Amino acid sequence: MKINHRITYPSSKKIYIKGKIHDIQVGMREITLSDTISVENGQHKAEKNKSVIVYDTSGNYSDKDITIDISKGLRRIREKWIEARADTEILPAFSSDYCNERLDDSNLDDIRFPLISLPKKAKKGKAITQMYYARQGIITPEMEYVAIRENIQNEELGIPTHITPEFVRDEIAAGRAVLPANINHPEAEPMIIGTNFLVKVNTNIGNSALSSGIDEEVEKAVWSCKWGGDTLMDLSTGENIHETREWIVRNTPVPVGTVPLYQTLEKVDGKIADLTWEIYRDTLIEQCEQGVDYFTIHAGLLKAHLPLVKGRTTGIVSRGGSIIANWMTQHNQENLFYTHFEDICLILNKYDVAVSLGDGLRPGSINDANDAAQFAELSVLGELTKIAWKHHVQVLIEGPGHVPMQKIKVNMDEQIAHCHGAPFYTLGPLTTDIAPGYDHITSAIGAAQIAWYGTAMICYVTPKEHLGLPDKEDVRAGVIAYKIAAHAADLAKEHPGAQVRDNALSKARFDFRWKDQFNLSLDPEKALEYYKIGRLGEESDHCTMCGPHFCAMKLTKEMHDCAKMNE
Amino acid sequence: MKINHRITYPSSKKIYIKGKIHDIQVGMREITLSDTISVENGQHKAEKNKSVIVYDTSGNYSDKDITIDISKGLRRIREKWIEARADTEILPAFSSDYCNERLDDSNLDDIRFPLISLPKKAKKGKAITQMYYARQGIITPEMEYVAIRENIQNEELGIPTHITPEFVRDEIAAGRAVLPANINHPEAEPMIIGTNFLVKVNTNIGNSALSSGIDEEVEKAVWSCKWGGDTLMDLSTGENIHETREWIVRNTPVPVGTVPLYQTLEKVDGKIADLTWEIYRDTLIEQCEQGVDYFTIHAGLLKAHLPLVKGRTTGIVSRGGSIIANWMTQHNQENLFYTHFEDICLILNKYDVAVSLGDGLRPGSINDANDAAQFAELSVLGELTKIAWKHHVQVLIEGPGHVPMQKIKVNMDEQIAHCHGAPFYTLGPLTTDIAPGYDHITSAIGAAQIAWYGTAMICYVTPKEHLGLPDKEDVRAGVIAYKIAAHAADLAKEHPGAQVRDNALSKARFDFRWKDQFNLSLDPEKALEYYKIGRLGEESDHCTMCGPHFCAMKLTKEMHDCAKMNE
Repeated sequence: MKINHRITYPSSKKIYIKGKIHDIQVGMREITLSDTISVENGQHKAEKNKSVIVYDTSGNYSDKDITIDISKGLRRIREKWIEARADTEILPAFSSDYCNERLDDSNLDDIRFPLISLPKKAKKGKAITQMYYARQGIITPEMEYVAIRENIQNEELGIPTHITPEFVRDEIAAGRAVLPANINHPEAEPMIIGTNFLVKVNTNIGNSALSSGIDEEVEKAVWSCKWGGDTLMDLSTGENIHETREWIVRNTPVPVGTVPLYQTLEKVDGKIADLTWEIYRDTLIEQCEQGVDYFTIHAGLLKAHLPLVKGRTTGIVSRGGSIIANWMTQHNQENLFYTHFEDICLILNKYDVAVSLGDGLRPGSINDANDAAQFAELSVLGELTKIAWKHHVQVLIEGPGHVPMQKIKVNMDEQIAHCHGAPFYTLGPLTTDIAPGYDHITSAIGAAQIAWYGTAMICYVTPKEHLGLPDKEDVRAGVIAYKIAAHAADLAKEHPGAQVRDNALSKARFDFRWKDQFNLSLDPEKALEYYKIGRLGEESDHCTMCGPHFCAMKLTKEMHDCAKMNE
Repeated sequence: MKINHRITYPSSKKIYIKGKIHDIQVGMREITLSDTISVENGQHKAEKNKSVIVYDTSGNYSDKDITIDISKGLRRIREKWIEARADTEILPAFSSDYCNERLDDSNLDDIRFPLISLPKKAKKGKAITQMYYARQGIITPEMEYVAIRENIQNEELGIPTHITPEFVRDEIAAGRAVLPANINHPEAEPMIIGTNFLVKVNTNIGNSALSSGIDEEVEKAVWSCKWGGDTLMDLSTGENIHETREWIVRNTPVPVGTVPLYQTLEKVDGKIADLTWEIYRDTLIEQCEQGVDYFTIHAGLLKAHLPLVKGRTTGIVSRGGSIIANWMTQHNQENLFYTHFEDICLILNKYDVAVSLGDGLRPGSINDANDAAQFAELSVLGELTKIAWKHHVQVLIEGPGHVPMQKIKVNMDEQIAHCHGAPFYTLGPLTTDIAPGYDHITSAIGAAQIAWYGTAMICYVTPKEHLGLPDKEDVRAGVIAYKIAAHAADLAKEHPGAQVRDNALSKARFDFRWKDQFNLSLDPEKALEYYKIGRLGEESDHCTMCGPHFCAMKLTKEMHDCAKMNE
């Protein structure tokens, strides 16, 4: 393990904001700026620029006072909060047969995460989800944490905000927001997904049978958090899924999601016909006890929907959807996730795992967008939402896919109409099919729009979409494209304080405070790299784009100076 | 000149579609596809896939039967059409003093384009613009050319279209569309810019005082056409602007635009106070006779607007705008482009150069979007449009800039309200300020939206925006991002035939016809490059993204096969 996982950002320091209700410390990033220098009556004048505080997904990795050792995992910040509630217990052993088999297998000693903790579970008769607490009127430390975190500018700026701990509680109670918080993932810093909060970005990593090892996946996970990924899905489908996930969960400061079906299918050697409720159930428990925070479950795709797929250009493009569709066809039975949905909820609510209702019939091409198959499934997702909520299970609704711009809004409208306010979580949508190699862009265009319309979380797409498994640089490109889309939506929704960073960066730009401009940007390293190409000096009052005579900002300043002299 | 400028696209051939009214040959690109292979009752079945014809901006460069020699320039396809109209004459010499000085300077022999043709100009008393012809009810060869070109799918597909030569004529007559067609740029293939046509992409190239030579600029121009740039602005501000432009114009098969003010300022050594109407006038004539097809002129920024700029975060960010604002401030005089606007029109209409009314006050930051300064200028652009049209000069209206999503539509609405239907031509807009290094993405998000709302042409932004001069790879990244935005808008506007390419590509994807998928994409080389990373065989029925068990498309096919067996 020679990879250095430390995360640094230029001119930035980790700060912690204290809670008022609970004894909590909310990690944020403060970017320090240099002074604005102007000349007035021949005298240099320095004007201080207030530092800018930004939302920070990098967890322990960016705190220089914390030693990073991925073989030990991150600090377990939520552990004492969970313990204080006294409604969970530590089990004497793992409950999943498969998990115990893996732990007993000495062949896996070399790749196993060395510090396995026994799992927690709700005490008998206790409800322990954030939704349950919220409904009881309880503001948990997790809720106060996100309330502080969402107010990205500290209070000194005096920007009015609707986001208080009580507001957070109310949104979770109503199902309009999800706070993924498996009691077995105490390393994760609380975050919230809901239309009345900052738009979040999910990133996908994970190996496939053809590539990628544990080291590489952990590195990608940390990398995703560095660039601002808010949640992380481990979509591994290759070897050693259990062990890979353990490393990822223990070292990821953001909620981790999975599609449990993928591992279940590996357990039956890829033979879809051999999938059973029992094996799936064991997999759910295995992952609940490892600390996965949310599961994508394709429970809304029914037998009755399959004929609707026939005329499609690209059939079923959801991996989970295509697997369960095949299972239904081979067995001529109803979707087992649908028939067992209540059983599933009764497992998830013992660990506070949220369900992300998968859209197995999302369109995979412009031609298939908004078709009967897609909307038939969406309406079932609405039914399932009610069932999950009955058991205090938090719910996300997954959305498309490939959708041309004029058909995007209808997706949001239909989701609102059918899903009772549960947060929408979409993959893109991609606004055209014709740009493989650039689908982070085709989809950022759609993601920005649907997030503006109300989607709470957007799932990134990398440049390798449709072509191969993303590497580290693809993860970076995907996360940044989606941070752009999410932030563009936050601005468009006029989220309190969202524009502070734009304003500070633009002022730095106008002042030729190049380093401040870069330090405030989403990717300071890339900006600096591009700036340095063909640059003469480090700081100057023009760049190679326009040269000295044609810099509009320089000319504006000269004009103002001239106008002042004329006054 | 060792650079190979030949443009090739995989599995593509140059085809020419004949005119019905005129003796014209419209170059298009035909992409040949392989068969769809399926198995039915144990028998392989091959189904033919129709080739796809796409809009082609690559001119002679992609016709293997035409020898490319950039020291000779491209074929002059419009020359005989212009001559046949018999309303222009070849001048005995260039009319610009500056041009003649440069031609007489033997120090420039080494860098001068070797084959200088004498310029054409309207005969005395003759109106020669496409707008004039259109108003007379004349369908020119240029108009029929674009009518054929806009029907991107050949007629065999039977997709109903509104675009006929008569429709083109009517749109130009009404000022709703611009067909840039300087009589001194006969190498340019006719194209049209208007809200009722395909959305067009402008690209900017050009050196600055700090970098880039002639070879490199010609290479970037050809490169822009390869990736689909519809027009090209030469924004050179460094040395040898006149000679650089000659090479570019002679070798560019798309309309070329400039900001004549840039060269004018170089002529007075960057001293803004020394700018005069006489020097500017000579520059206009110099460039009209070289063959520039449209000029950006910042004639709408008035003295009265300058106080509105004061509270801005980023002042004036248009280079031309800041120059003329400084000039007005220093001289305490009204904008000379405004006071001389009628004189300007009377020059431009002798060559059929279109005017692109520059938005000198476009916002350079989210905070400055849609402010009083911006809209005050827009309303003047509307006045100027009427004046230009009086002289049969074609008009484009330039637009912003930096605009958050919720404020984009108002820009289009205001433009429609004030500018009498003249086509809107916007730079982005960028939907956030916080992503230098990725502004091709921040702006593609805004460009796709504003194009959907009706903007006719979008000006690309490269990843180097705000940071430096774009190189060849930046040009490619910028053009592709904007081709995506333009195509996404064509789909959203339901432009006839636009979806044919998406459908063909998605069908290829579903069939695992990988090569067809790539060949149909906007950047086949990039798609293939990404696909090959970590690939085992050349063609397979899964990719590294999902591995063999998890390919949804493969599973869909298996399900359909299974369902068939069950029937």
